[in-house]
Amino acid sequence: MGSDPATGPIRSTPSDLAPDAPVAAVWRGDLIESLHYGRYVFCDAQGEKGDSLGDPEGYVYLRSSAKPFQALPLVFSGAADAFGLTGEELAVACASHSAEPRNLAAVRSILRKAGLSESDLQNGAHPPRHTLTAARLARNGEKPRPIHGNCSGKHAGMLAVCVYARWEPAGYRDPEGPLQKLIRRTIAKLCGIEPEAIRTAGDGCGVPVFALPLQNLALGFARLAAGGAEDFPEDLLEAVMRVRDAMCAHPFMIAGTGRFDTRLMEETDLVAKSGAEGVFAAGSAEGWGFALKISDGASRAVTPATVAALEKGGVWVSDQTEVGAVKDLHGKVVGKVTPLIQTNP
Amino acid sequence: MGSDPATGPIRSTPSDLAPDAPVAAVWRGDLIESLHYGRYVFCDAQGEKGDSLGDPEGYVYLRSSAKPFQALPLVFSGAADAFGLTGEELAVACASHSAEPRNLAAVRSILRKAGLSESDLQNGAHPPRHTLTAARLARNGEKPRPIHGNCSGKHAGMLAVCVYARWEPAGYRDPEGPLQKLIRRTIAKLCGIEPEAIRTAGDGCGVPVFALPLQNLALGFARLAAGGAEDFPEDLLEAVMRVRDAMCAHPFMIAGTGRFDTRLMEETDLVAKSGAEGVFAAGSAEGWGFALKISDGASRAVTPATVAALEKGGVWVSDQTEVGAVKDLHGKVVGKVTPLIQTNP
Repeated sequence: MGSDPATGPIRSTPSDLAPDAPVAAVWRGDLIESLHYGRYVFCDAQGEKGDSLGDPEGYVYLRSSAKPFQALPLVFSGAADAFGLTGEELAVACASHSAEPRNLAAVRSILRKAGLSESDLQNGAHPPRHTLTAARLARNGEKPRPIHGNCSGKHAGMLAVCVYARWEPAGYRDPEGPLQKLIRRTIAKLCGIEPEAIRTAGDGCGVPVFALPLQNLALGFARLAAGGAEDFPEDLLEAVMRVRDAMCAHPFMIAGTGRFDTRLMEETDLVAKSGAEGVFAAGSAEGWGFALKISDGASRAVTPATVAALEKGGVWVSDQTEVGAVKDLHGKVVGKVTPLIQTNP
Repeated sequence: MGSDPATGPIRSTPSDLAPDAPVAAVWRGDLIESLHYGRYVFCDAQGEKGDSLGDPEGYVYLRSSAKPFQALPLVFSGAADAFGLTGEELAVACASHSAEPRNLAAVRSILRKAGLSESDLQNGAHPPRHTLTAARLARNGEKPRPIHGNCSGKHAGMLAVCVYARWEPAGYRDPEGPLQKLIRRTIAKLCGIEPEAIRTAGDGCGVPVFALPLQNLALGFARLAAGGAEDFPEDLLEAVMRVRDAMCAHPFMIAGTGRFDTRLMEETDLVAKSGAEGVFAAGSAEGWGFALKISDGASRAVTPATVAALEKGGVWVSDQTEVGAVKDLHGKVVGKVTPLIQTNP
């Protein structure tokens, strides 16, 4: 396994295959049909590791779990105050939203306040995750637009920073532009890693995506939940607290109806954000963070694995049985998805 | 691991977790983002195992890879001849089709020849896999119907057997009814296993689904490709040859535009059929069969793993690079899916 002394192992060759651990089983009848591996780690705000499974040092692309960090410049740049953004609007800037009407209204409001419009969004288009909204679009013969993309709030927030800072808004996605370099430094600060140790590639929506050791993602969420760290400058401390408070006050804005992120934040005091390819991160005001990666990237394993791991961390989440049911096309239950992480006796 | 002396290990408890082997990597930039495990085995028509990876004895639900076997009663019952079914219609009875117009025409023709209609189909509805057909339905405000389901050809074939045999057609899905019991015995015969050793559950379309050791699926496809086995009765031998010939003559009917099953059968002399949850099986007239299971059920790993494994078996399939590209919403290539199975030097 390739290894950087400062940052731990990096999966960059096919031989970097440290085996992860079984975290969820997909049953059909009385046999396991498919099996998901994964790894997770708990970490406090000082970087002390707690319970973990699999390799906590291996790199992981944060995907949308980075969105709360990516939204910090919106606050500490002064843009959020200058444009009078509300808590709901700050929250949707951290979202992988379902494109429900309230989500879209908040994204449009950010754009309007910054003097922009839907046509400035460069996040690409995909059908709304909310099935009723998707069906309505199809019925009206409308194609999905970038605003319906789950990342449109993040992109609206990035655009607003550029408008306020007088950086060319059309260049907001440029990995070498001032905004994306600022975001990279911000993520490094939150996650306790050198900016040079962060690896980047392209995310689905066309902005840079960041990779770092799983334990550093957990550390970042511990600090997000705790409201920062001692060595953070004043403006960053305030931004961390405001982003955290906005997410916790408006969990619907972070995802949408029936989504796990939203339900988890409604039920608990955690701040949480999922990412594509089976990534999940959460933080508690009690001073710890949690990060999980499903090795094969399957989203269906995230909820059962996270619920079981959080229970070990002392957070009880209500029954997810319905979510874990495998049904046939007639609606009959023919199987289930169950966690394989052993919870405390 | 639970083990039946006659049939090998069965994954029926969470501790039955024999580790499979890495078979495909999903790259983003220059890091592996996600990883797929799996297992495969080659087997000749006498049951002699060849090259394999992971556990060839572990049970696997055949899912749609069983469709060629499930179509055999349509021929040996006499129904196919009585109703004058064509090769294309026999092929679509073995299909997981994309609901393209030619697929649907063949399914409707089976139903019409058997004196039935679309309303007799009990396979449940899901949107057509063919995006243009799906978009056309949505534009017309039509909901997907069972005929658009990928299994509608299989269900039409099952209905036709019942009509011909004077079994109640409406009961064709009953696991204890005459048709499903006949299908189970047929699969046992092809795959060289006792009917009692086959495990069953519910498939996505509401008919019984069959589980047996992976090596027995490979044996079944070796015999399908070879046209049967010495101890098969005359009518079964003829049915095996006619189903194989129909599949190989009409690969478009088995899947559809751009689909791997279709392309593989167009390019090679193999008879092949994929199944849900990462199952794939193929057989060669040279006298061998191949079966693969992606442990986590991911379909994106099936093509790269199968292409690499088949190359070890001496079958060269043309470049699948385009299929393996990971693109962002702007169409830019940001990663790739690559096999981790080492091919011959």
